[in-house]
Amino acid sequence: MITSENIWQDISAIREKVPLVHSITNYVAMNNTANALLALGASPVMAHAENEVEDMLDIAGALVVNIGTLSDPWIRAMKLAIEKARASEIPIVFDPVGAGATGLRNNAIYVLFPSGPPTIIRGNASEINAAALSAATTRGVDSTESSESALHSAKRLVDSYGSTVCVSGAVDYVLDGENMIKIHNGHHLMPKVTALGCTASVLCAAFAAVNPSPLKATAGAMATMGVAGELAAESDFCRGPGSFQVAFLDALYNLTFEDLRGKLRVE
Amino acid sequence: MITSENIWQDISAIREKVPLVHSITNYVAMNNTANALLALGASPVMAHAENEVEDMLDIAGALVVNIGTLSDPWIRAMKLAIEKARASEIPIVFDPVGAGATGLRNNAIYVLFPSGPPTIIRGNASEINAAALSAATTRGVDSTESSESALHSAKRLVDSYGSTVCVSGAVDYVLDGENMIKIHNGHHLMPKVTALGCTASVLCAAFAAVNPSPLKATAGAMATMGVAGELAAESDFCRGPGSFQVAFLDALYNLTFEDLRGKLRVE
Amino acid sequence: MITSENIWQDISAIREKVPLVHSITNYVAMNNTANALLALGASPVMAHAENEVEDMLDIAGALVVNIGTLSDPWIRAMKLAIEKARASEIPIVFDPVGAGATGLRNNAIYVLFPSGPPTIIRGNASEINAAALSAATTRGVDSTESSESALHSAKRLVDSYGSTVCVSGAVDYVLDGENMIKIHNGHHLMPKVTALGCTASVLCAAFAAVNPSPLKATAGAMATMGVAGELAAESDFCRGPGSFQVAFLDALYNLTFEDLRGKLRVE
Repeated sequence: MITSENIWQDISAIREKVPLVHSITNYVAMNNTANALLALGASPVMAHAENEVEDMLDIAGALVVNIGTLSDPWIRAMKLAIEKARASEIPIVFDPVGAGATGLRNNAIYVLFPSGPPTIIRGNASEINAAALSAATTRGVDSTESSESALHSAKRLVDSYGSTVCVSGAVDYVLDGENMIKIHNGHHLMPKVTALGCTASVLCAAFAAVNPSPLKATAGAMATMGVAGELAAESDFCRGPGSFQVAFLDALYNLTFEDLRGKLRVE
Repeated sequence: MITSENIWQDISAIREKVPLVHSITNYVAMNNTANALLALGASPVMAHAENEVEDMLDIAGALVVNIGTLSDPWIRAMKLAIEKARASEIPIVFDPVGAGATGLRNNAIYVLFPSGPPTIIRGNASEINAAALSAATTRGVDSTESSESALHSAKRLVDSYGSTVCVSGAVDYVLDGENMIKIHNGHHLMPKVTALGCTASVLCAAFAAVNPSPLKATAGAMATMGVAGELAAESDFCRGPGSFQVAFLDALYNLTFEDLRGKLRVE
Repeated sequence: MITSENIWQDISAIREKVPLVHSITNYVAMNNTANALLALGASPVMAHAENEVEDMLDIAGALVVNIGTLSDPWIRAMKLAIEKARASEIPIVFDPVGAGATGLRNNAIYVLFPSGPPTIIRGNASEINAAALSAATTRGVDSTESSESALHSAKRLVDSYGSTVCVSGAVDYVLDGENMIKIHNGHHLMPKVTALGCTASVLCAAFAAVNPSPLKATAGAMATMGVAGELAAESDFCRGPGSFQVAFLDALYNLTFEDLRGKLRVE
């Protein structure tokens, strides 16, 4: 359904076209996601003010909305950005960080999804469950539920909003109304580094800026995350989560078609 | 007074229970403190909006309040969070970053301490002096005073608020109304990396989430910081403050009882 | 015009006097710029609230204003800080990140430059062009124009505001009303790491805190950036942009006069 050739075509397009990814994201992740976009070959920009987000979308190839550190003015800016992106046919990636943990996050989702359905929604099982208004109770921003358990919620989001949904975890499930791709790449150190989920979301945005299929863009981005994670962990540079994070950026930057072909495990 | 066995028991409990630490902290430190909590075995979450902080405490095991990059809305959210944590008997760690440097920071302390006395206060000598309303003039966020000179201020804070106080520096002093523990671990590169003081405070919170004695929790966290710092500096990976920071996270993640027993220097 | 001896004199003065650099900067760069200042030997502090920025300048040796993640309250605080710095004869470094990308950024420059002309303006070619109100269209925060093309804009800024201007790029141009220094140091990995431009600006501020000549301070800072970047890239530690960033901080910390003398390429 997706091959290393497909993914490599997207990576090559990103490196050639250098799409600008506009992120309205949380304070914790900003530096990581900017560096990951640069390492991949894309270009990051951040703007969060209500009187700036629409202008920034005039030059952006994709929008990322991430609710990891929310406040009311940011929610209002997210709404404006989403409406503008929708009107301009710019792909929107929504990362429901910590959904279910508080009313503010849940309400943000309730307000934002209808104002411009996300092209892609990526979260862990807890977050996808909460985003789908299921009865899940979430515990902060780390998932305590299996990815499989969130597939029902993911399908509800696909049906309600027409989004492509990724439930990330040990196995990443990427689905739209017709297909589901499972990605088995990744490494157990990845959840020990903050903002790698947020990083996955911005890679989805970079891929979506060059690939008109949200399903393939998302699967390609998640596979690229997983393969870069495996390369980082296998590097003699890596001794724990600190050096893993550094090696991950190096691996993303140095990624070759041979790496991808040799490591890709999708079904 | 505190042994490597005591500290290891807390670290094991953190790794097993994975306490959620809710931080309202400064923008500079957020990424570092999140990664340090993950490397230790705890789980980080950040929320700073007035209409979210109380909800987040419903699922948190400890609260960190850090005044490193303040504004009025954040101070109001800190007050709500502190009151909720106090009412819910959740330990509160207060980090008075840059106390004494500006009226805003001093006023924040004046308002926040009485609204919910901190379980633990951790700062450098300048900050503890300023927090105690002594005549100290502070110079930014780096301490220019010796830890010893701040012990009188620390005792005043213990007496006024019933807090456990840590004056961190080349020697860390941890004291409550009855006892004082001195920790000699650490490395001279540590003040050359931003946010390692803030990191110490979040480790105090993770320990306090599993140990009902604030004195032992604080001493254990500070000793763990110091030992991880020594391991990082001794690693062949470390060549300066950049690689030290990376090696510090690796050391925290890989820390063993033998490391702790071999290096702990407390009295 | 500037020699390794001149630059080393400034670095030695920074290490000895440890100037406090107050930054009002973007969320993405804060951690990087704090660490770079510490590695260089200076001391960072961040404060952005309207009711705090003036107080902080009472203890600061330089001010950095960076518009990378703007909002109206921050612009108002920048204005207050700039006026206070001007009145107190504290050098001001202005980094027009993403100038030209949005009306908010352009308006911020229009408001802020007249309220206190910057001592030093440092940006890439696109940003300097936009800051000079030239017809340039900019594309996010990465420059798509050559440094040479922005020299006309730089001269307009020098004439209008009396500022020293640095157009950074593969070659860095530093000019005031009388002189121009070209710096050929640097490495192609540097634009692949986020916030290295912002880092250059805070180094300019640290140098300006110890050197009364803005031209020499800026040239010294840019040369130090470039030499540290070359040392980092040549290190066996460096395998890509992740490890480059780490090695850059190590190189800045470990920099010697011999390094500088051996690598400096200015004209």
